[in-house]
Amino acid sequence: MSFEPSTADRFSFGLWTVGWRAVDPFGEATRPPLDPAEAVHRLAELGAWGVTFHDDDLIPFGADDTERERRIARFREALDATGMVVPMATTNLFTHPVFKGGALTSNDRDIRRFALRKVMRNMDLAAELGARTYVLWGGREGSETDAGIDVRAALDRYAEGIDTLAQYTLDQGYDLRLALEPKPNEPRGDILLPTIGHALAFISRLQHHERVGVNPEVGHEQMAGLNYVHGIGQALWSGKLFHLDLNGQRGPRYDQDLVFGHGDLLSAFFTVDLLEHGGYDGSRHFDYKPLRTEDADGVWASAAANMRSYLILRERARAFRADPEVREALSAARVGELSVPTLDPGETPAQLAADKTAFEDFDPEAAAERGGGFVRLSQLALDHLTGARAQ
Amino acid sequence: MSFEPSTADRFSFGLWTVGWRAVDPFGEATRPPLDPAEAVHRLAELGAWGVTFHDDDLIPFGADDTERERRIARFREALDATGMVVPMATTNLFTHPVFKGGALTSNDRDIRRFALRKVMRNMDLAAELGARTYVLWGGREGSETDAGIDVRAALDRYAEGIDTLAQYTLDQGYDLRLALEPKPNEPRGDILLPTIGHALAFISRLQHHERVGVNPEVGHEQMAGLNYVHGIGQALWSGKLFHLDLNGQRGPRYDQDLVFGHGDLLSAFFTVDLLEHGGYDGSRHFDYKPLRTEDADGVWASAAANMRSYLILRERARAFRADPEVREALSAARVGELSVPTLDPGETPAQLAADKTAFEDFDPEAAAERGGGFVRLSQLALDHLTGARAQ
Amino acid sequence: MSFEPSTADRFSFGLWTVGWRAVDPFGEATRPPLDPAEAVHRLAELGAWGVTFHDDDLIPFGADDTERERRIARFREALDATGMVVPMATTNLFTHPVFKGGALTSNDRDIRRFALRKVMRNMDLAAELGARTYVLWGGREGSETDAGIDVRAALDRYAEGIDTLAQYTLDQGYDLRLALEPKPNEPRGDILLPTIGHALAFISRLQHHERVGVNPEVGHEQMAGLNYVHGIGQALWSGKLFHLDLNGQRGPRYDQDLVFGHGDLLSAFFTVDLLEHGGYDGSRHFDYKPLRTEDADGVWASAAANMRSYLILRERARAFRADPEVREALSAARVGELSVPTLDPGETPAQLAADKTAFEDFDPEAAAERGGGFVRLSQLALDHLTGARAQ
Amino acid sequence: MSFEPSTADRFSFGLWTVGWRAVDPFGEATRPPLDPAEAVHRLAELGAWGVTFHDDDLIPFGADDTERERRIARFREALDATGMVVPMATTNLFTHPVFKGGALTSNDRDIRRFALRKVMRNMDLAAELGARTYVLWGGREGSETDAGIDVRAALDRYAEGIDTLAQYTLDQGYDLRLALEPKPNEPRGDILLPTIGHALAFISRLQHHERVGVNPEVGHEQMAGLNYVHGIGQALWSGKLFHLDLNGQRGPRYDQDLVFGHGDLLSAFFTVDLLEHGGYDGSRHFDYKPLRTEDADGVWASAAANMRSYLILRERARAFRADPEVREALSAARVGELSVPTLDPGETPAQLAADKTAFEDFDPEAAAERGGGFVRLSQLALDHLTGARAQ
Repeated sequence: MSFEPSTADRFSFGLWTVGWRAVDPFGEATRPPLDPAEAVHRLAELGAWGVTFHDDDLIPFGADDTERERRIARFREALDATGMVVPMATTNLFTHPVFKGGALTSNDRDIRRFALRKVMRNMDLAAELGARTYVLWGGREGSETDAGIDVRAALDRYAEGIDTLAQYTLDQGYDLRLALEPKPNEPRGDILLPTIGHALAFISRLQHHERVGVNPEVGHEQMAGLNYVHGIGQALWSGKLFHLDLNGQRGPRYDQDLVFGHGDLLSAFFTVDLLEHGGYDGSRHFDYKPLRTEDADGVWASAAANMRSYLILRERARAFRADPEVREALSAARVGELSVPTLDPGETPAQLAADKTAFEDFDPEAAAERGGGFVRLSQLALDHLTGARAQ
Repeated sequence: MSFEPSTADRFSFGLWTVGWRAVDPFGEATRPPLDPAEAVHRLAELGAWGVTFHDDDLIPFGADDTERERRIARFREALDATGMVVPMATTNLFTHPVFKGGALTSNDRDIRRFALRKVMRNMDLAAELGARTYVLWGGREGSETDAGIDVRAALDRYAEGIDTLAQYTLDQGYDLRLALEPKPNEPRGDILLPTIGHALAFISRLQHHERVGVNPEVGHEQMAGLNYVHGIGQALWSGKLFHLDLNGQRGPRYDQDLVFGHGDLLSAFFTVDLLEHGGYDGSRHFDYKPLRTEDADGVWASAAANMRSYLILRERARAFRADPEVREALSAARVGELSVPTLDPGETPAQLAADKTAFEDFDPEAAAERGGGFVRLSQLALDHLTGARAQ
Repeated sequence: MSFEPSTADRFSFGLWTVGWRAVDPFGEATRPPLDPAEAVHRLAELGAWGVTFHDDDLIPFGADDTERERRIARFREALDATGMVVPMATTNLFTHPVFKGGALTSNDRDIRRFALRKVMRNMDLAAELGARTYVLWGGREGSETDAGIDVRAALDRYAEGIDTLAQYTLDQGYDLRLALEPKPNEPRGDILLPTIGHALAFISRLQHHERVGVNPEVGHEQMAGLNYVHGIGQALWSGKLFHLDLNGQRGPRYDQDLVFGHGDLLSAFFTVDLLEHGGYDGSRHFDYKPLRTEDADGVWASAAANMRSYLILRERARAFRADPEVREALSAARVGELSVPTLDPGETPAQLAADKTAFEDFDPEAAAERGGGFVRLSQLALDHLTGARAQ
Repeated sequence: MSFEPSTADRFSFGLWTVGWRAVDPFGEATRPPLDPAEAVHRLAELGAWGVTFHDDDLIPFGADDTERERRIARFREALDATGMVVPMATTNLFTHPVFKGGALTSNDRDIRRFALRKVMRNMDLAAELGARTYVLWGGREGSETDAGIDVRAALDRYAEGIDTLAQYTLDQGYDLRLALEPKPNEPRGDILLPTIGHALAFISRLQHHERVGVNPEVGHEQMAGLNYVHGIGQALWSGKLFHLDLNGQRGPRYDQDLVFGHGDLLSAFFTVDLLEHGGYDGSRHFDYKPLRTEDADGVWASAAANMRSYLILRERARAFRADPEVREALSAARVGELSVPTLDPGETPAQLAADKTAFEDFDPEAAAERGGGFVRLSQLALDHLTGARAQ
């Protein structure tokens, strides 16, 4: 079995991932800057299909137009030379001190307007480079004390901002969908739209809700102790899984951005299972950080590790779904029965209320005796994940 | 200053709170059963306004009709004698083994139908007793392994169930709104609709979405490390804060159901501040458990403690909002500016894009220099909460 | 490859695991009582080597002497018939209401004395049945409010209790070591000796510290977000890993007691790796709960699953350690160099202070450039764990 | 009531606190560098008593001797001018890339030796400036994958390092005690000595264990969901609370370093209560970070806020302890009874075993009926904390 990635696998990486210089809250950079063009070439060699970027990853904040054009041209050359695509782009609304109190929800209206313009500008470039998804992570939209924020006013401004940006893409004729990325905390004490659920709920109230979906990150949900597979399941159910960020995390703690699979491995297995068998056809995008301990070799080894982990898990998930015993166990656990409506076709609540078999004649004690069959399924998954099933 | 509750404060308690016999995962009951009628009388004496119940709190699961009527009559007598109201009722879809694998999302269709009927039956009683809110907590809707659940099918059945129940209230002419109660886990490994956000998102896709809101519990959000004040802020923003459960919790761990204020006290302060000054006019409902160590005296002391904590915090929050220095600090932090739209009236994205003052002429370095003023607000809140401001 | 357990694997189970009737904080029992003798027979058939028990698992609290002897005799018969051993026993100091406020640290001295006697009585039985380890989990030793406990007084009583019990085993000539089991919370808000570290520190101050070690449970450490492998590593370093409890948990939340491997799988892999290659020669003891959804078939399937998971991981860990590329990667990461003392033999601090090569002539910039090589090791582990390495 | 700090309160601050430039994992500095001499003057004006420092806070890493002496002289001048003391100092073994893989436990022996020398050099300065405590936080001692670390070898090296440093202080005749600071994670995935307990256990095995204690930080324990008051209670019980770091945190998440009191306020109240009434007579040291949103005014406001919060809580704790109703409630809860030994003077285990009143004649049902009285104590604490008791 080979686990070599190819462009058909649609693996993409943010420039900021392999390019992370490893500054952390307690330490200075351990690696030199990485030229975006080199990143494109190296990722292409490793088998990636696409690359994504924040505006400031490509063009330093405050660069003049000449410098800007020069850098974009150089990036384009690398794309052309390698055949790498740019499926997604995003905006850095968090690094510069001007955003310390928020961007689209800063208390300072001038900063809000500046933030919108910064996004629009990079949307222009994203569209030009062929991106189809535009991600917005509001990492600075939040607070450390509830004394300093009116959440409803903040959500009003957040909605105004997102609707303005959606309208902008429509006005410009860009084929760009927006994808909001939730996160519970860090760098703010509490970030607005902390989970997939909060983001989906927010989107449902937007004027341009059809044009906006979510970009859920594995680690961000797991920082709240939530089940990522359930989260993207609900996003798919809502028709809103526009993009996603794969990485690893070890529960509620600081944002680790580990290699995909190097955190909660069982959850990674079921994530791949759902993506491969649940109708998702977008990028498999890695948003991770190479460990601060690593040098350049370690950076590229970690990039390769993300793809290899995915491919191993894909192989394991396929075998799991194809295994007749798994099918039998799913049937024994009556998992498929959940797809059958609870009411008969056309049955009204009143008819249900009159159905004695449903209540008066139903024997709950007898029904309670049937076992769920879930431990068997759980162990079959572990058997497949560890490759033990085949042995 | 007196902190004595009165009916005007709209404090309500679940029968299951003071009636909790203190069975926990590692221990047997430490207290005898409590007669619901006695609970009504004692809560009324303590100053409560209302009482709420699960069907099985009042009438044991499987009781015959005679027993059922006898118990309801006795409960009514206590309500009449005390003037206590029943603002809310709910269904127990979690204690009996028949629901071990879920109720509205059980893989067993017969169990789903039985669960719907169990809810309908108690909705009849709730309406009869004058309740205006019907809470649904799907504590058994979930899984321990992703191998045994198709989240999308489960959400389909969940939505079908809730819509059926909403239709039932309409068909029956009940003045009852439904309120879904989110929780991340316990007793299931992962519960569907784990947070306020997920519940709001789910509701937005219901056929009867206008009739369904949320019933967020302090501890349930805090079990996911989330900010409860932000959560109910988003629920209010969505017009969906139909009811709520006040209690205490100490972060991500088992569901503690402490007395309100005995968990994260700063968050409790800001919760009361938002409820009192944010337009919420529903019940102040306590869903807590008296510590297992306590006897009957401790039970009633704990019931009183919930109300007393609320009243202390209400007094502190009022003083905070009335303090001229707080107003000045809010102004200095430009908190009110967040209510001003980011775009000018009628301004289009194109016009914003053409506004050089917003980007080309904007000086981010200068804007970044202004301090947020949040630590001052935070300390003013602590000063008020501790009563130190007045000294 | 067969993953069939045998007695040589030294797998043991608590009677309370397969015998758990699935009462949880929100639900009634879903399974009938299990006869301890049947448990012994079934576990033996599945390949287990030993069985462990709380006094009350075997003999109901308050049973008279005749009943007690009858039950013990029946248990012995099952042991004799199957060849199963009893490597460990423990005391239930948490289920009965008398222990609601603590056992060895109850504020009520009479309860403390009763608790000591209850332990002594079961130590007698444990010794009689050949147990070599006596576990003490102080699940009720703790508090929900810091207002009600003087931690130092509580630790004084805890130490007095443990030393008394250790002295009792010496006086009686029992070949029994004591093993304390840490847990951070649940059922108490905060439990004394919350982690492996706190327990080891406490033990170091006991009079009979040589006779007392720890019994760390996977899930209990992970409920505090701690690394179990590091924890048992420190216990081994301290010579105190007397026994352990294997199971699964999904981070900080309620105590899940999942099947071993069904929680954090990567950590389970490294746990087995350390146990197999780190000099531990005690029981592989499973302290888990079969999911509440399961019937009797599910119970036995889950018991088998614990052993199968362990054996799969053992096979994977052996292959990992035997792989020449892993050895090369460990060498490249200089992992072995950590076993070399930092000072030269006999070198004094003053000599180190005078060594210019260590500081004045040391080039930190050059030393900082070398990569750690950890991502490569991490991926090699994942490759082995998933069986991908062999393919 | 005035809450103005004075030197008698023994408040101290790290230079790195008010001097934090607010670089975080997602953002650049928002504040200019702060001159240490200015920090000393400003803190003195605010009422602080002492200042503490890492070597690199005062003298940039790699500065030459002239620069070093110039900076030390300038710092001394500020101390002399203000009367501020230096009760504690510590070493930065985490910022420079050379320590990316650990300092005292780096796999690279040369780095370990360099780290020891870096500590020794700053111990010389600490002693010269009159410090009595030397803190060691091993923020880089740890791992992200268990594949890359042998915990036992790491603890061997850690112990060797600490013992070498303790020996150095003895050899030099310094009146300096060492205090280890535990932390569970961040910046490493898992840090060695993750909690107070693990550190105390480690210390008990050192050659120079008498000279080494702990420096527990509020937020570090709370990042593991642990009770800080219990933690420092165990440290006091062990005679090892040499120093401490006061700040605020909101449960398991990234290290927030909030102002003391701005996290878990009830825990802060009980922390002050224990420090004031539990025999601790060391520094009240604040190790916090001014919010990144704040400018210089906010920095100084936040420094003042730490001390003010402490003084408010001290006043509240004193009133709590002095309240006759609290004393009565403590007595009713039999809290004092826990200080009475469980065994009679000279009583042996055999005598206890023969005491029928302790077991055979003891009535557990009757004993179980008595209530704990803890909710009353809990509410009295809340009443005092909120100042409601006085009203």
